[in-house]
Amino acid sequence: MTPPPLSAVSFSDDESALRIIDQTRLPGALVELTLTGLPEMVEAIQGLRVRGAPAIGVAGAIGLAVLAVRAALGNAATFDATIAAAADALRSARPTAVNLSWAVDRVFAAGGVGGAAPAVRATAMHSEAIAILRQDVAMCAQIGVHGATLLRAGMTVLTHCNAGALATAGIGTALAPIYTMHQRGDVVRVFADETRPLLQGARLTAWELDRAGVPVTVLTDGMVASVMRGGQIDAVLVGADRIAANGDVANKIGTYGVAVLARHHGIPFYVLAPHTTLDPNTPDGDAIPIEMRSADEVRLMGGVATTPSGVAVHNPAFDTTPSSLVTAIVTDRGVFFPPYHFSD
Amino acid sequence: MTPPPLSAVSFSDDESALRIIDQTRLPGALVELTLTGLPEMVEAIQGLRVRGAPAIGVAGAIGLAVLAVRAALGNAATFDATIAAAADALRSARPTAVNLSWAVDRVFAAGGVGGAAPAVRATAMHSEAIAILRQDVAMCAQIGVHGATLLRAGMTVLTHCNAGALATAGIGTALAPIYTMHQRGDVVRVFADETRPLLQGARLTAWELDRAGVPVTVLTDGMVASVMRGGQIDAVLVGADRIAANGDVANKIGTYGVAVLARHHGIPFYVLAPHTTLDPNTPDGDAIPIEMRSADEVRLMGGVATTPSGVAVHNPAFDTTPSSLVTAIVTDRGVFFPPYHFSD
Repeated sequence: MTPPPLSAVSFSDDESALRIIDQTRLPGALVELTLTGLPEMVEAIQGLRVRGAPAIGVAGAIGLAVLAVRAALGNAATFDATIAAAADALRSARPTAVNLSWAVDRVFAAGGVGGAAPAVRATAMHSEAIAILRQDVAMCAQIGVHGATLLRAGMTVLTHCNAGALATAGIGTALAPIYTMHQRGDVVRVFADETRPLLQGARLTAWELDRAGVPVTVLTDGMVASVMRGGQIDAVLVGADRIAANGDVANKIGTYGVAVLARHHGIPFYVLAPHTTLDPNTPDGDAIPIEMRSADEVRLMGGVATTPSGVAVHNPAFDTTPSSLVTAIVTDRGVFFPPYHFSD
Repeated sequence: MTPPPLSAVSFSDDESALRIIDQTRLPGALVELTLTGLPEMVEAIQGLRVRGAPAIGVAGAIGLAVLAVRAALGNAATFDATIAAAADALRSARPTAVNLSWAVDRVFAAGGVGGAAPAVRATAMHSEAIAILRQDVAMCAQIGVHGATLLRAGMTVLTHCNAGALATAGIGTALAPIYTMHQRGDVVRVFADETRPLLQGARLTAWELDRAGVPVTVLTDGMVASVMRGGQIDAVLVGADRIAANGDVANKIGTYGVAVLARHHGIPFYVLAPHTTLDPNTPDGDAIPIEMRSADEVRLMGGVATTPSGVAVHNPAFDTTPSSLVTAIVTDRGVFFPPYHFSD
């Protein structure tokens, strides 16, 4: 029996709060959080309780709408300052994914620039957040349809990190074609590399695919090359945090290495993301800011130090894959092949 | 001040036991084990308390010698059967590294095929184990001298897993040139990838280099590609568990991927190992047995499950790098460039 679809990020039932699955607790426990305050929302995004470029965009949108509705119940004189500060804090919670600032900007703009009463403006922001949420679900479904045209039943694919249902409000981006085909009864097997340091592949991708009945095997990042050499991988599917105008792709650290290995072994390397991940204002990958994260993410495992305390640790959260290694980019608008030229 | 050299594997002070550093306890604690029984010796090798192809060769040699001396004190009628069974168990404790069976065979052969009294034969085996130990120390030193000719002060190298002092009785294989240059005052910086699943890079390489005063930075396996693309790596140095006659190299899982990435970025990829790692009887990499290890090595971190319990896990301990990706092979006998043809 197919389990109910996941909802990684949404409004609470009464639409007064941001509801997320706390992804730091998976796969051990499925815990939902209901967030109503700005500090908790920023902490949830920075602490990766909600993660994945589309999902943090939706979280930022819903978060700002929830805060605006609450602010509209208070002092009208401070409404503008409150929502502007909230938008700033949410927008800058993480720097690499373009979806977050895009979604927050959109909800903020829906609130207008003054004039109407706060309650009217907050209601417009709330409606805009609902539209963004629904749009994300629809974009995932479209990515699934377009991406499935690149695959066949019986294939085995490799994915890196988690660009699945947990990374979006819908059925995911990189995993959307897998779910689309699974619904049709077409089996595609998945190798999920564990994706150190935070193990989104082992913890999240394996969990959600296994839950949905898709056959999945976990391997460490260092095993990808030998599995490719063994002829076991037909295609690589990854998501993206930002795609530059020339097709360069910022995604979870380790993606670039997988792209090089795919090219060496003659395996197609597909990037799947909503069109909102395309950033025409970023000319190429060199212009994408790369978030550096705490050394402790690498140094500690289950609270135990695996690296001696005096030793330096390198921990970028993302890397950039040049478009020359990208076989195709799949968005909700279709399948794009090189040369890539994305504009507004 | 330079700390005293490490001794990862040796005789105990009175030469009646095998003494090892328990590498499963590093970097948290430096614990030495003194082993006198066959089951403990086999467990130490299989459980990776002593690891690294040269070190397990020396451990097998000393272990068999210690057992022979003890057997010679017992019933002369069972001496032959006892040492034959011990040799079999030690030789097959791990299948991939050729050094283990080579060293055990050598000590066993030194005991002759009968005739002389057990005490005489055990003494010959004991002497042979001492010779193997001393030879390993000397081979490491020679690898350091030859390998240093490929490097210059100020370079930054990447290494995978641990092929350092902890992997040998001496100053290591891949790390031997680093120590040799460090002794001369020539600084070479090292990036150590953590080497999942068992983290020998983070736990062992970082620990022993930091202890010796060599600058070292830890990164996850998935970060190697982006650091190479950033121009930060001048050379890759790795060890080997077995080198086939055609130069194909079996080494810790993940080595092959690093070799592909090095080739893509135009970075030389050097394999450093004692000449006893060369196996003329293995024509190419396809003929090297690859040990598969427990899924729990990948599934659990610090005792916590990171992968859902129902999900399949792939865990080969080694991979094979084709000789076409190997810039040079350095042994105690010199530096060898392709095409490789190793014979007896």
